[in-house]
This record gives sequence, structure tokens and C-alpha cells, in this order.
Amino acid sequence: MEFSQRILDTPSSFIRNILKVTDSPNVISFAGGLPNPISFPVEKLRESVNRAIDEDGSKLFQYSTTTGYAPLRQYIADKYNHNFDLGITADDIIITTGSQQALTLLGQVLVNEGDGIIIEEPGYLGAIQAFMLAQPTFYPVTLEQDGLNLDELKEALEKPNAKFIYTVPNFQNPTGLTYTQEKRDAVYDILKDYPDIVLIEDDPYGELRFEGTALPYIGGGRLPNSVILGSFSKTVAPGMRIGFIISKNKELMTHVETAKQAADLHTNIFSQYVLHDYLTHNEYKEHVEKIIDLYGKQANAMLDALEKYMPEGVTWTKPEGGMFIWATLPDNKSALDMFSKAMEADIAFVPGDPFYTGSQHVPTLRLNYTASTPEVIDEGIKRLAELFKKY
Amino acid sequence: MEFSQRILDTPSSFIRNILKVTDSPNVISFAGGLPNPISFPVEKLRESVNRAIDEDGSKLFQYSTTTGYAPLRQYIADKYNHNFDLGITADDIIITTGSQQALTLLGQVLVNEGDGIIIEEPGYLGAIQAFMLAQPTFYPVTLEQDGLNLDELKEALEKPNAKFIYTVPNFQNPTGLTYTQEKRDAVYDILKDYPDIVLIEDDPYGELRFEGTALPYIGGGRLPNSVILGSFSKTVAPGMRIGFIISKNKELMTHVETAKQAADLHTNIFSQYVLHDYLTHNEYKEHVEKIIDLYGKQANAMLDALEKYMPEGVTWTKPEGGMFIWATLPDNKSALDMFSKAMEADIAFVPGDPFYTGSQHVPTLRLNYTASTPEVIDEGIKRLAELFKKY
Repeated sequence: MEFSQRILDTPSSFIRNILKVTDSPNVISFAGGLPNPISFPVEKLRESVNRAIDEDGSKLFQYSTTTGYAPLRQYIADKYNHNFDLGITADDIIITTGSQQALTLLGQVLVNEGDGIIIEEPGYLGAIQAFMLAQPTFYPVTLEQDGLNLDELKEALEKPNAKFIYTVPNFQNPTGLTYTQEKRDAVYDILKDYPDIVLIEDDPYGELRFEGTALPYIGGGRLPNSVILGSFSKTVAPGMRIGFIISKNKELMTHVETAKQAADLHTNIFSQYVLHDYLTHNEYKEHVEKIIDLYGKQANAMLDALEKYMPEGVTWTKPEGGMFIWATLPDNKSALDMFSKAMEADIAFVPGDPFYTGSQHVPTLRLNYTASTPEVIDEGIKRLAELFKKY
Repeated sequence: MEFSQRILDTPSSFIRNILKVTDSPNVISFAGGLPNPISFPVEKLRESVNRAIDEDGSKLFQYSTTTGYAPLRQYIADKYNHNFDLGITADDIIITTGSQQALTLLGQVLVNEGDGIIIEEPGYLGAIQAFMLAQPTFYPVTLEQDGLNLDELKEALEKPNAKFIYTVPNFQNPTGLTYTQEKRDAVYDILKDYPDIVLIEDDPYGELRFEGTALPYIGGGRLPNSVILGSFSKTVAPGMRIGFIISKNKELMTHVETAKQAADLHTNIFSQYVLHDYLTHNEYKEHVEKIIDLYGKQANAMLDALEKYMPEGVTWTKPEGGMFIWATLPDNKSALDMFSKAMEADIAFVPGDPFYTGSQHVPTLRLNYTASTPEVIDEGIKRLAELFKKY
């Protein structure tokens, strides 16, 4: 049996692969990217299932429209108009099977083999994997403390056949970094002269801000080729796989709809009804506040432990929200080499390599704080610091 | 904005597009392909949600494995081993977001641009759409009353870069035809000399047999490159989007898993838990018997009405199960031309065209009987017959 070039070129997920070893009960794992299950509103969702079945019965279980459950799309439109003044309607939204599916659909719809994708370096590895299926050329642009490096961005925009830019503007995965207002405006100013290049702002963590104030999107609401991706995975429940694409570009959305028909006809409508019922019968804002409080404490516990234990030369980001801290080892030490030693000491993280489209044996690593208690975080960072001192 | 060649080449679903006009309450529609919602076990599924939450709580809502919920995969393996002696394990199964997703994943994993796909003519239009995204060359093989035309199959197998054969062996969509035992054996005899070519048997309707006895798969259980696709959409509920791929080829399944990671990380785990609970706490066989009884009566009502009303020269298939009858107009009259006239008379069907990869203005049409009562079926076929007499 011969396989396609696109699948031979596409790496399987490093994180999903190491989960098999990092999942052992002895291991303190900062490797995952899982929301804390104590944040899932299980009983409220149960109530919503029962109420939605009472109200709509068999409609929850029938085939449905490809674009998604209209009242859920309306809820999302209202929320984004209220929070960000985007001026969108329900028709500017397609519900996807998690925002991961949105990444694959956009790659399929926009990219011919060899076309350019401009991506943050380091960038979200799930996006790299999804885009690989379209066999692109990646143009990485360094993600600095305040956002994309502008000179590199300008250079990348001049590359032949660059089709879109992929960004995670808030509490980025893997770095936890957030674009400043100044950097958002500077990126916008550059992009407004490239009306054919799509700006994708993937924002699954935006609501989980425990410090500072929410900032407007870079392109959302003001660039004609703006695409915003959102998700309920980090605020309600990832297991239901409900994300969405927002774009006012009708032609793009028509093609995305066709690609989604081919991909899975439509997103699980049972879960869409349940989620919509949940959102409209509960104090969603209060629920999110609880998650923010939880993650803020966990982030602080990790930052305190890093400060307390880490040897000189190790540096790290200070996230204002989201789920991740990004650490850098001194002397260009390979974090991937350190990974197997860490596993021997029953402590896990994600080495930086899979977040880069070019570089290997980078000295960076991703630490997740949302899946461990402050006590476990302290113990884990202590073990990690001892290791970094030793090698 | 420029779009990819693959999406420009991919048609949007003819059926999903006409649903907007055929959905009007005045229209008698035989155009859909919807299971009858009275067959959905709504109250049993509600019980399963509540029981599954009691037992597994937040696990229903967390991220999960790409291959799918292990107990559900085990249930499927046991069932197929029992019914078809396939000798498979849970590891030979990947749960997909409906069997539609399986089609897209297989196209992505197996087909480079221009590679060959051998497909029944007429064939399932959702499969044609899914495969188009991989930019293949289609080699259509005529589907006759008893299965594929063997001479055309042999010829197609000799084409350069033919990668797989796509079949629906039981109550095919769109024709309702079923491969006979003799034809299954003859196809197997030919294919066993082509070990590099994958045989896909897509079988969403197989359990819905209201006449005759179940037949073994063509390749399943005996061809090394066999792939069977299954679904719970036609027997439990399509809205939960749960299908599956069965194959003993490890290399293929590893690539499918990577493509699925990129596509949507994993299938909705909430629904997988609920479905597994439903399957293991209810008399599934009795439930399916009720659907068979319902659809058998509806099929007979349509066959009787066709016999009673249709003018001479119109012919149709006599399905032993499933959801569709396929009619052929005399004198090569275009069913597509007839479609708009039918809509004026408030009667809808699917003209044959979208089921062909080459031909246009074919004289064939698909009639679905599962969504209408026997009385409505009688009235609808009467209207249709009057139309066919007139033009």
C-alpha cells in the first residue's frame, strides 16, 4: 500500500504521543494542555441535556445544517458584537468540530501545494499539523514578548504565494505571550496594505485573562480578510468538540462550508443544543470567573516556584491568562535532550521542537499549569530545577 | 483572496443545497436521506446521558484519545466478530465523526493529486465530494443489478496509480442495490491479485435489511487491504455523528490516526460515552427490528405506488433494505430537467447527476421512502407519475 505525500509529510502529534508515557500516576506532568476538569459544569450540562430533550426531542438527534445550530450562532454573534463591536451576524459564523477542524478547513480551502503560510515561531503545533496536510511552505516569523517581529513579518509578506497569517494573539500556545495594543496596531497597519492575505486570529484562551484588560483583535472588525477562531473547549468542555469560525468574507465561508460538508456533514447537533441551552440558562460569566480564579492561582504558583528554584540563566514568560508558561534554558541547551532525563525523574514537559517549523534542538520548553494543584506545581518545578542544575 | 484548486474543484452537496427548497411544508419530498426521527430512542438516550454522567462525570467532557473510546471500540469489534467472523480487536477500529469523516481521511491518506479512485457509477455523492478534496482521477465502474460490472472493474484496476475501490455493498446509496453472493465472490477473486489496492466497503445501511438474509463482506475478513466503514447514524442517531473505520492494516490506521488528529483531535467523547451506555443497557437488536419493520412498510408502499401509477417505460430497483429506490426514465429523458417541473408540482426527488463522476443529464433519480408515511408516499408517487406522463 502506498500513502499520499501529504500524510507522509505530516508529523503525528508529539504531545498526543508522549501522553502515553506522561500519563503514569507517578509522573508530575506539565506536558498536557488539558483544562482542569473541576471547571466543567457537569451538573449544569446534565440539566441542559434534560431540558433540551424536553423542549426539542428528536431534533437533537437528527441530521442538521452544515453551518451549525442557528440559535448557537446567534448567541456567538451577539457575544462578539457586545465584547468587540465586530458587527457580525449569525451568517458570518460556522460551527466547527472543535477549532482544530477550523484549522484543517482553512488550510484545505486556501492553500495549494507550495503556497506560503506565515506562522508565529514558535507556533501552535496543532495548527502546524493541520496546515501540513495542505503541503504548504511555512514562513516563520519570530514571536517576541509583545507580538510578531515586524521586520520579519514584512519580509514574509513579500514571499510568493503567501496566503494567510496564523496568529494566537492572546496567551499564545505554547508561549503564553499576548500581543500588546501597540503591536496589534502595528501589525494591522502593515496588513491593511495586503488585502489578499487572510489574517487568522485563533483565540481559544482569550476569555481566560487573570491579569490586565482584554484587547481588541488585530484584524477582527477592521480587516476585510479577517478570520477569528473561537472555541468552548477551554471555557465549558472540550469533549463536546465545539468551535467556530467567524468571517465576513462570504466567498471564503461558502468554500469552508463545502469543505465541512465533505469533512463531517455537520458538527454534533446534540451537543450544540445542549451547549446553547447551557449558555442561555446559566451565568456563563460567573462560571468563567471561577476558571480564571483557579488558573490565576495555578499560574502564580508556577511563577513563584520558578523564581524560588530555577538556576540562574533559565528564563520564562509571565502570562496574563491562558494555560501555559514558556521557559528558555541557558547556553542553547536542547530541551529535547533534557526530556528523557526529566522522564527518569518522573517530571514531564513539552520540549520546544514541535512548535517550530524549521529549528531543531531548541532550548525552549512548554509548561502547563492548569492540570496540577499549587502543591504539585511547587514539587514539580523543584524537581525540574534540580535537573536543570545537574545538566 | 485566492482559493485552492482542490476546493474550486469540489462541488457543494447538491442534496444539501436543494434541501432549502424541498423543506417547504407544502412539498412532498423524496429528496432527503434522513432516518425517520420516530426511530430515535430519545428517552433511552436521555437515560444513558444521566447514567453515564453518574458513572463517569467529568470524563465525558474532557479531551480524549484520537482513536476513540476504548469500550465502544471493543463493543464494535465484538459485534463484527460475532456477525461476520472478522477476527478484529478494538485496536483495528478508529471512531470517526460520522462515516463521512472516514471518507475524507481515507482520501487524504491514500491519494496524491491525479491518483485513481475506482468508484461505483452511480455512486454515493458524499463520497465523491469527500474524495474530490484529494484531487483524484475517478475511474467509474457501472453498478449493475447484482454488483460491479466485472469487465469494467478489471479494466479500471489496470489504470495507472489506482489506489482504492469504493463500494457500498448493501442497499447502496443511491440505487438501493445489493451485491449478490456470486458477485461478491467474483469481485473478491479479481481483487486478491491486487494486494496494493484498498477495498473500501462502506456499510451504513447493512443492518436495515427487510428482505433476504445478510451476506458476508466482499473483502472484510479475507482481503488484507480491506477497509469497512460503519455508522450509528442510521440505527441510533445521526446527530451524534459517530461512525468508524475497521482495518487490520496497521500502517494505514496509523496514518488515519494522524489525519484525524489534524482534523478534529478526536470524536465528541460525550456522545461516545452516551452511545456506549445506550448500546450496553438496551436491546439494540429489538430496536433495529422496529426500524426494519417501519422502513420495510414504507418501501413496500413506494413500490406499490410505483407499480400502480407509473407510466410504461419507467423502471425502478427493488431494495432488500436501506432507504432508497432508484428510478430510470424512458428515452433517456433528463431527470434534472424534470426536477424544476416537479418542484412546481410540490414534489421533490434527487436527479441522478450528482451521483456520477462523468455523465450529465442522466435519466435516473433517487427516491427516499424513510421520511414519509405510506399515505404521503402514495400521493407523492401519484403526483410524480402524472408529471412523467405529461413530459
